[in-house]
Amino acid sequence: MKTPIPDYLEHVLDEVRDIDEGEVEEGLPHIDVKDPTELAAAVCTVTGNVYTAGDAEVTFTMQSISKAFVYALALQELGRKKVFETVGTEASGEPFNELSLGRETNRPMNPMINAGAIAVNQLINGEDSSVEDRVEIIRAFLSELAGRELKVNEDILDSELEDSDRNLAIAHMLASHGVIHDDPRQAVISYQRQCSVEITVIDLAVMSATLANGGVQPVTGKKVLDADACRLALAMMGTAGMYDGSGRWMSTVGIPAKSGVSGGLLGTLPGELGLATLSPRLNPQGNSVRGVAIFERFSEEMGLHLMASDPIGTHAVRGIETEGEETTVQLQGSIHFAAAERALDKLSDYDFDCECIVLDVSRVSGFEKVGRVLVKEGLRRLRDDGFEIAIYDPKEKFGDLEFSDGTRAEVVGEG
Amino acid sequence: MKTPIPDYLEHVLDEVRDIDEGEVEEGLPHIDVKDPTELAAAVCTVTGNVYTAGDAEVTFTMQSISKAFVYALALQELGRKKVFETVGTEASGEPFNELSLGRETNRPMNPMINAGAIAVNQLINGEDSSVEDRVEIIRAFLSELAGRELKVNEDILDSELEDSDRNLAIAHMLASHGVIHDDPRQAVISYQRQCSVEITVIDLAVMSATLANGGVQPVTGKKVLDADACRLALAMMGTAGMYDGSGRWMSTVGIPAKSGVSGGLLGTLPGELGLATLSPRLNPQGNSVRGVAIFERFSEEMGLHLMASDPIGTHAVRGIETEGEETTVQLQGSIHFAAAERALDKLSDYDFDCECIVLDVSRVSGFEKVGRVLVKEGLRRLRDDGFEIAIYDPKEKFGDLEFSDGTRAEVVGEG
Amino acid sequence: MKTPIPDYLEHVLDEVRDIDEGEVEEGLPHIDVKDPTELAAAVCTVTGNVYTAGDAEVTFTMQSISKAFVYALALQELGRKKVFETVGTEASGEPFNELSLGRETNRPMNPMINAGAIAVNQLINGEDSSVEDRVEIIRAFLSELAGRELKVNEDILDSELEDSDRNLAIAHMLASHGVIHDDPRQAVISYQRQCSVEITVIDLAVMSATLANGGVQPVTGKKVLDADACRLALAMMGTAGMYDGSGRWMSTVGIPAKSGVSGGLLGTLPGELGLATLSPRLNPQGNSVRGVAIFERFSEEMGLHLMASDPIGTHAVRGIETEGEETTVQLQGSIHFAAAERALDKLSDYDFDCECIVLDVSRVSGFEKVGRVLVKEGLRRLRDDGFEIAIYDPKEKFGDLEFSDGTRAEVVGEG
Amino acid sequence: MKTPIPDYLEHVLDEVRDIDEGEVEEGLPHIDVKDPTELAAAVCTVTGNVYTAGDAEVTFTMQSISKAFVYALALQELGRKKVFETVGTEASGEPFNELSLGRETNRPMNPMINAGAIAVNQLINGEDSSVEDRVEIIRAFLSELAGRELKVNEDILDSELEDSDRNLAIAHMLASHGVIHDDPRQAVISYQRQCSVEITVIDLAVMSATLANGGVQPVTGKKVLDADACRLALAMMGTAGMYDGSGRWMSTVGIPAKSGVSGGLLGTLPGELGLATLSPRLNPQGNSVRGVAIFERFSEEMGLHLMASDPIGTHAVRGIETEGEETTVQLQGSIHFAAAERALDKLSDYDFDCECIVLDVSRVSGFEKVGRVLVKEGLRRLRDDGFEIAIYDPKEKFGDLEFSDGTRAEVVGEG
Repeated sequence: MKTPIPDYLEHVLDEVRDIDEGEVEEGLPHIDVKDPTELAAAVCTVTGNVYTAGDAEVTFTMQSISKAFVYALALQELGRKKVFETVGTEASGEPFNELSLGRETNRPMNPMINAGAIAVNQLINGEDSSVEDRVEIIRAFLSELAGRELKVNEDILDSELEDSDRNLAIAHMLASHGVIHDDPRQAVISYQRQCSVEITVIDLAVMSATLANGGVQPVTGKKVLDADACRLALAMMGTAGMYDGSGRWMSTVGIPAKSGVSGGLLGTLPGELGLATLSPRLNPQGNSVRGVAIFERFSEEMGLHLMASDPIGTHAVRGIETEGEETTVQLQGSIHFAAAERALDKLSDYDFDCECIVLDVSRVSGFEKVGRVLVKEGLRRLRDDGFEIAIYDPKEKFGDLEFSDGTRAEVVGEG
Repeated sequence: MKTPIPDYLEHVLDEVRDIDEGEVEEGLPHIDVKDPTELAAAVCTVTGNVYTAGDAEVTFTMQSISKAFVYALALQELGRKKVFETVGTEASGEPFNELSLGRETNRPMNPMINAGAIAVNQLINGEDSSVEDRVEIIRAFLSELAGRELKVNEDILDSELEDSDRNLAIAHMLASHGVIHDDPRQAVISYQRQCSVEITVIDLAVMSATLANGGVQPVTGKKVLDADACRLALAMMGTAGMYDGSGRWMSTVGIPAKSGVSGGLLGTLPGELGLATLSPRLNPQGNSVRGVAIFERFSEEMGLHLMASDPIGTHAVRGIETEGEETTVQLQGSIHFAAAERALDKLSDYDFDCECIVLDVSRVSGFEKVGRVLVKEGLRRLRDDGFEIAIYDPKEKFGDLEFSDGTRAEVVGEG
Repeated sequence: MKTPIPDYLEHVLDEVRDIDEGEVEEGLPHIDVKDPTELAAAVCTVTGNVYTAGDAEVTFTMQSISKAFVYALALQELGRKKVFETVGTEASGEPFNELSLGRETNRPMNPMINAGAIAVNQLINGEDSSVEDRVEIIRAFLSELAGRELKVNEDILDSELEDSDRNLAIAHMLASHGVIHDDPRQAVISYQRQCSVEITVIDLAVMSATLANGGVQPVTGKKVLDADACRLALAMMGTAGMYDGSGRWMSTVGIPAKSGVSGGLLGTLPGELGLATLSPRLNPQGNSVRGVAIFERFSEEMGLHLMASDPIGTHAVRGIETEGEETTVQLQGSIHFAAAERALDKLSDYDFDCECIVLDVSRVSGFEKVGRVLVKEGLRRLRDDGFEIAIYDPKEKFGDLEFSDGTRAEVVGEG
Repeated sequence: MKTPIPDYLEHVLDEVRDIDEGEVEEGLPHIDVKDPTELAAAVCTVTGNVYTAGDAEVTFTMQSISKAFVYALALQELGRKKVFETVGTEASGEPFNELSLGRETNRPMNPMINAGAIAVNQLINGEDSSVEDRVEIIRAFLSELAGRELKVNEDILDSELEDSDRNLAIAHMLASHGVIHDDPRQAVISYQRQCSVEITVIDLAVMSATLANGGVQPVTGKKVLDADACRLALAMMGTAGMYDGSGRWMSTVGIPAKSGVSGGLLGTLPGELGLATLSPRLNPQGNSVRGVAIFERFSEEMGLHLMASDPIGTHAVRGIETEGEETTVQLQGSIHFAAAERALDKLSDYDFDCECIVLDVSRVSGFEKVGRVLVKEGLRRLRDDGFEIAIYDPKEKFGDLEFSDGTRAEVVGEG
């Protein structure tokens, strides 16, 4: 059985593909957007499974998405006390204060706005570090997260400080308040190079899954970050990752996230998975229009919401037992996206030695929409692989039994 | 075996009991605080287990804690569209704006500040509702959440609008902007009666667990709220539940929470449990000093953090098998508080028919501090119940094997 | 000779009469506007001359215009120290703060916004005063300024607190911060009665001229206020009298002013005169549209600007000398409106005993536009009274010598 | 007779000389303060009389004081429409917004804060101007105002952008909003050179008197500015010249003013005079401590307040008549500082041909404190010059007749 999850992702991309609202960020030489129609999505689970759809191999620069990871690096390197002294942890609320410095502290409100991110960048490798050394440390760290060597976009380097007035204003103000100590122009160059690291949505999903996984890169298995640094970075994504609308985002989408001006959007569900999308056209708040639409679908259809009551059953498949020619697969718990993904992952690898597969859902507490779709699709594919399929569903939790090709699953009276 | 969890809670209370900082809110006739030394904590799991310590039977008025629940009720009654039109979803950030009305919308920033809570209260039962009818609906709803009939503190009613200048100011301003339509004085009375519903920490923990459980009251099993209303209420607790320090709270404690001026503090971990504490002395931000200290310990020692990477294994006990006189209990997954709680809950009910109990932790991915302490204490109590105890721990994840009475568990080479 | 000044005022009214932009404040029962087309202007000099045009006898309620005078009364009664402790002296800047309370002081920013005016009203007659006694003291004081018994509009009293939500919000907030001590509802009633005192533009002009005259009512000659109270009230009109646009107003119009929602507008030039207009339609800032247009003309055409370099020559008429049948009137200094007014006032009373009047302008430093118009018109009227007229103008400062009826003045070579 | 006015100024300096509060601005290389004890004052009347006391020849850099004059130059060069499009005219109110950009306009709130001054500087000579050309135009203009060639402090130039982080932050932010178009670093250099023009208090007093005199430099008689540019510059000094305390300053001191960080303080009374002081120690708001103290004395003792009801009588000396050996000097109007100054100026030049001088004060409406002191001192000096002195004061307005040396004036019954 081939897992139907990439097909689901492709389906979501198809649903949003024709949305042509929003504007590509232009005129900033350090932003590279090649094609406004690019569209991609990737998911990486904490178990290391990666699913992709669309232009998943297209590279783009991280931009503001880098803020979340470099904040985690600073926490890892310096500890929370030092980092909290430099940058706050509160939402900046209404954008009444362009610099977003705390009124009394003169400290950036949080690390997700530019003032905070420039200050955090300066923490890496110490304030006496050269820009080259600091950027190399950041690049190497981001590469560990991605599980491959990332590089800094050199075209973008050429423009360096062109059109960087807003960042220069912020950096000079930070210097005037003693928040940063290096030359403000060097600080902006250092920060903008961090933003110029090139990634794909696959990289982003894996990096995000590393945060979701307590700092263990789920593909390489390497411990890249402490769990505490991951928690604090995720908390800031939840508090301030989506600019002025972070509260609404956490209410309606419920996935700690960070967006970048080149069109990337990254989300993380702790203990579950990382999501990433690419679509360059931005809404007025600077978030990718189609990226937001994809996340809304993920949240609603996949049941992915930080405040949802259903923790991932680590064992959606309660057991697989074979008696004669019949193998019974017993599911349990709440079957949302992540649960279905684990079940399908297990089933796609399983070496069935039988004629008939019975899916026993008598212990399932409920199905989220996508969970049901994916499980049904998995059954259909198992049937296409030559197995006879039946469902044991005494409480009628499974609902509609029609497959995507119009055929139906057989219902059995006893698992 | 009697579960050791209440003893752990009592232990945490002992650790904070001598903290005497903070001030009891005084001079407000509608706040009733009988004794500043009162101290209580309660935990309710989504499976309906309740654990308590301290003055858990003491009643106090809900005050601001009611905001989270009445917001959920409004969402349930009117749907998110109508509620979002009335009150925003963003953190109010720095308290630069005493009324916390959005600059352009003139709408309260969120339902966790008084302006928002007064507006939300007015949504219940329609704007033409009498105060009596509206308060009765709210009281009945809160009673369903608590699983018992709650009542409104009548002593407090007597004072009604005394010293309510700030709320009256807010209500009149809301009326001037058309956010509320009833007489502002009636609106304040209506809101303040909502605040005067009397509860215990046990009630609060159960009510909180209902939010954690997608709206199903875990003790009565009754569906009180839609999952969506629960998610949105929890999201607002995460965004704005702890006033100006909500961002810091979500970073360091990581438990969506709501505090009240009478000393109560409520926290919720979606899909896991509800926590509640009582201690009347408040810090300058208006949060209970010892309540905050207890939550910090819960977060750190119990591994309870919304952004933690460890989802609750719904099945910490992978299996219990008896062969002859030996029963093997196999644990799995990450053993934090909630996992240990479920394991101990299962073991305390289990009818062991053997001489020797072997705990097999070979499949445990890790222990949080409190998880280990609780499991060890459970083993010790099983030994005190007369069983022989052994541990199978080939990867040495269990660490120190010394029990609280100085004795040690036996280690076996094979489960 | 009859002074041409009323004709000039009538001319200005004609210029603005057809402007029909703006909206009458409606829906507030305590605002009485009878007819949106009402239009009136009045000027009173510090020498007690009153000139009027339009509906100068129409009464209307003072509304916010009362703020300036009651502030002066509070300064007079309590001294600046006590008043400054209660209410600030700074412009409120951008309307970011609806209550306009100082961020740290919780004191109203200035006495020209409602929060400040309500607090100042409470200072009169002490905080234990009944509303009746306080309002009677204010009414009596305003009557002294006007030089006649004013009364409180009783129709408006009937509605009292209807639609007063904004003021009630402010009063409750002031009470919550201890800025006022009386019941907030009584405070609003007290303030709104102050606003309901009925006046005409003539009253306003005279009251304004009293401020301009250091507290001496220029018609009755009675000392009503100390000079210091007048200076401080005028300073606040200059700083904050025209709401958010006060700075722009002081730049372009340059007349300390105060507007009211019933359409009145009051201006004062210290040491010179008081101006008042009535026209009920308001611009979005709440200032009378045609009132503002009249003041702009006054400022530009009459040379009335606080920052203008020309102080009023108290003696525009340097001397009047009669030799035989010829009487020479010698003017001096800068002839702007106020100077021309004084000269014409003198000439209209003068008992000329001659055949020919020669106007000697050889010592005039310059003419403002209206100054020249008025002086020419005065000459024309003297000619109509039967005198022969000639001008001695060796430096050609007078310019065009054509009268309004197309005739011309004779020019002589020697005064 | 030698005028006693310099002695009065010296007396005021003596009163404040021992105040040693405040701190000299240090650490900014482009501020030059040689000696914190320097103390100087100068007055220049619109008639061109200059009076000085203290270290009146000491040069210092203009710093923020230059803002007022360059704003006037921009208005003169470009007209109010263009200038108002670039920079606002409102007080910035509470310093909640470090950049003081208007919330919606992104335009500096006013030209008296650094953001506004940098933007105004860029208007001079067009945006394509070289820094050298622009600074030369400004230097030449300021020289015309001072009546002598001023120069730019070259020591200060050497440090250029050192410690200019705050100005650089502002300039980059202005560039990011399109308010300025030149390179932000060049803009800061251009502005800081404007601030580095060296002046004395004498220069400042004369420059200020030029604004007071409608743009005619009172010593050279040259027309340097239009009256409109002067009025608008003075209006902004009144609205925002003294930073956050501008409203309080206009209430209590009442003199449109501008202070600089090198210790200078400049005030202007339109139509009357210019004042300037130097004392380097600053209060926390950045205003010269002793400078403020001197201005408070000027305002109170000299009766100099923009909102005062007494315009300057241009003819305090109504007439001088000699009959035989007796010359009668008749004063009239209100005798405040400026009136006394003009009377004494006239008397000190007058060629008395008599034995006895009678001062007739029967037509004086009142004496301000300093007016009386100065007139008495003038009489004493005339007596020392050998004349017999008598006073005709039927209404006893002159009060105490004792001279500073303990002798008394004779009182006569008939002038």
